Amino acid sequence: MEFGEKLSKAVNKNNSLLCIGLDSDLSKLPEVVKHEAQPLFAFNKAIIDATADLVCAYKPNTAFYEALGADGIAQLKRTCDYVNTNYPDIPIILDAKRGDIGNTNNGYLDFAYNYLGADALTVHPYLGRESLAPLLDRGDKGLIVLCHTSNGGAGEFQELEVAGKPLYQEVASRVINDWNANGNCLLVIGATFPEQLRVLRGMSAKMTFLVPGIGAQGGDLKAVLGAGLTENNDGLIISSSRSIIFASPSDDFASAARREALTLNKTINELRHR
Amino acid sequence: MEFGEKLSKAVNKNNSLLCIGLDSDLSKLPEVVKHEAQPLFAFNKAIIDATADLVCAYKPNTAFYEALGADGIAQLKRTCDYVNTNYPDIPIILDAKRGDIGNTNNGYLDFAYNYLGADALTVHPYLGRESLAPLLDRGDKGLIVLCHTSNGGAGEFQELEVAGKPLYQEVASRVINDWNANGNCLLVIGATFPEQLRVLRGMSAKMTFLVPGIGAQGGDLKAVLGAGLTENNDGLIISSSRSIIFASPSDDFASAARREALTLNKTINELRHR
Repeated sequence: MEFGEKLSKAVNKNNSLLCIGLDSDLSKLPEVVKHEAQPLFAFNKAIIDATADLVCAYKPNTAFYEALGADGIAQLKRTCDYVNTNYPDIPIILDAKRGDIGNTNNGYLDFAYNYLGADALTVHPYLGRESLAPLLDRGDKGLIVLCHTSNGGAGEFQELEVAGKPLYQEVASRVINDWNANGNCLLVIGATFPEQLRVLRGMSAKMTFLVPGIGAQGGDLKAVLGAGLTENNDGLIISSSRSIIFASPSDDFASAARREALTLNKTINELRHR
Repeated sequence: MEFGEKLSKAVNKNNSLLCIGLDSDLSKLPEVVKHEAQPLFAFNKAIIDATADLVCAYKPNTAFYEALGADGIAQLKRTCDYVNTNYPDIPIILDAKRGDIGNTNNGYLDFAYNYLGADALTVHPYLGRESLAPLLDRGDKGLIVLCHTSNGGAGEFQELEVAGKPLYQEVASRVINDWNANGNCLLVIGATFPEQLRVLRGMSAKMTFLVPGIGAQGGDLKAVLGAGLTENNDGLIISSSRSIIFASPSDDFASAARREALTLNKTINELRHR
């Protein structure tokens, strides 16, 4: 199924814009899973089983798996396989922030889509549309382009003025008006920058934006939803990682994650439907 | 040993600015290695053994290993281990083009330096200095920032004018004047853009630039060396991948690679010392 359609169905089925980031940092895992043969997978499986009726997507960040080398990548694959087998309605966003020349991006395409079975991939814009052609051409997969990131120093280049507007708006303009011929592009805009989110929504009434930075990074949910919702009260993927998956450091980590996810999803939905 | 010193020693010992890119695309490997249990490693081992006295660095690109998933990453690790064990004087540049928020970049740091034992890493500048702090702080490792890439469409953002100059120059200016407090930064500038290389050399008389795009991508060696050498006739890492490692599709691939590397290195040195 095409990514946008799969996402939309999950949003509606679970009544949720919440995406859980599976940033499963080994050093932060509860003791109860830390000594499993595949601790990242064991942790993810418990989190997924506890929250799969509350989310519109899962978003593993590759860095936390690569940190463990080949074994970490095997656990990432097992995690993706687990979602695809047991919760085939929930899309997987691979947060890999890749971006190379065209020939080389085919390798990342194989990794994300053929090996892991992900539904969407995050990428850097810096090398331009031409470099991303193999990924843009996969109309069935979401291509999520970094636009304005959530980190405090994001503005160093992203807010530089080019042709009378900040660079992030130039990136957005090209993605919205030029790169999106297959209708498979999304943008990343950090929850910590709601005013910039408002500008982006003004530039595209319909494009879906991936919004990280709620929770540990301090993004303001009310400001984010006020600025970024579409007319249909959707068009946002609100991603939270640490504040959900590490809600408890103890044996009850999965039920604590469910509680946090429930609360966050409820808050989001109250703000969506006021 | 600190990356810059290790690189400098390899340049002098082998009288070479040549870096071989280990872009070991499984689909392009000779039949003789394709059916090995670890074909990418078997291929790399033969290429490395045939060329280790001719290069200043090896540069595996992660995409070609990730394409095979966990097994590919295991072969990448075995490749890095092989270089570090058998040719400890030759630095390894991990061409991964990573870049995430600071917390997450620690995972990539673990992957590149602790797991693989690489000496340097390529990164995207888009998230800014603050995001790269964990990597910049590793003064013993080279951080190679994408500045002007080799692909035909590189200019879409990189040539956009910000504050009266193209974005790639703004990136270079910040890396040269601000990010490089530990003296561990390098820039990527594609061989296909020698005029931009000349500008960068004008901005920094000493910084080392990684120059991909010689060979299959069509970069002009004479123009590159004329534009980019330092006063000491070095300061460039000239990277070639496909035209060397795939010089022959047959059993003689390693000796063909050696022949190509010898020729290219000879040409580089003639141009260096005229």
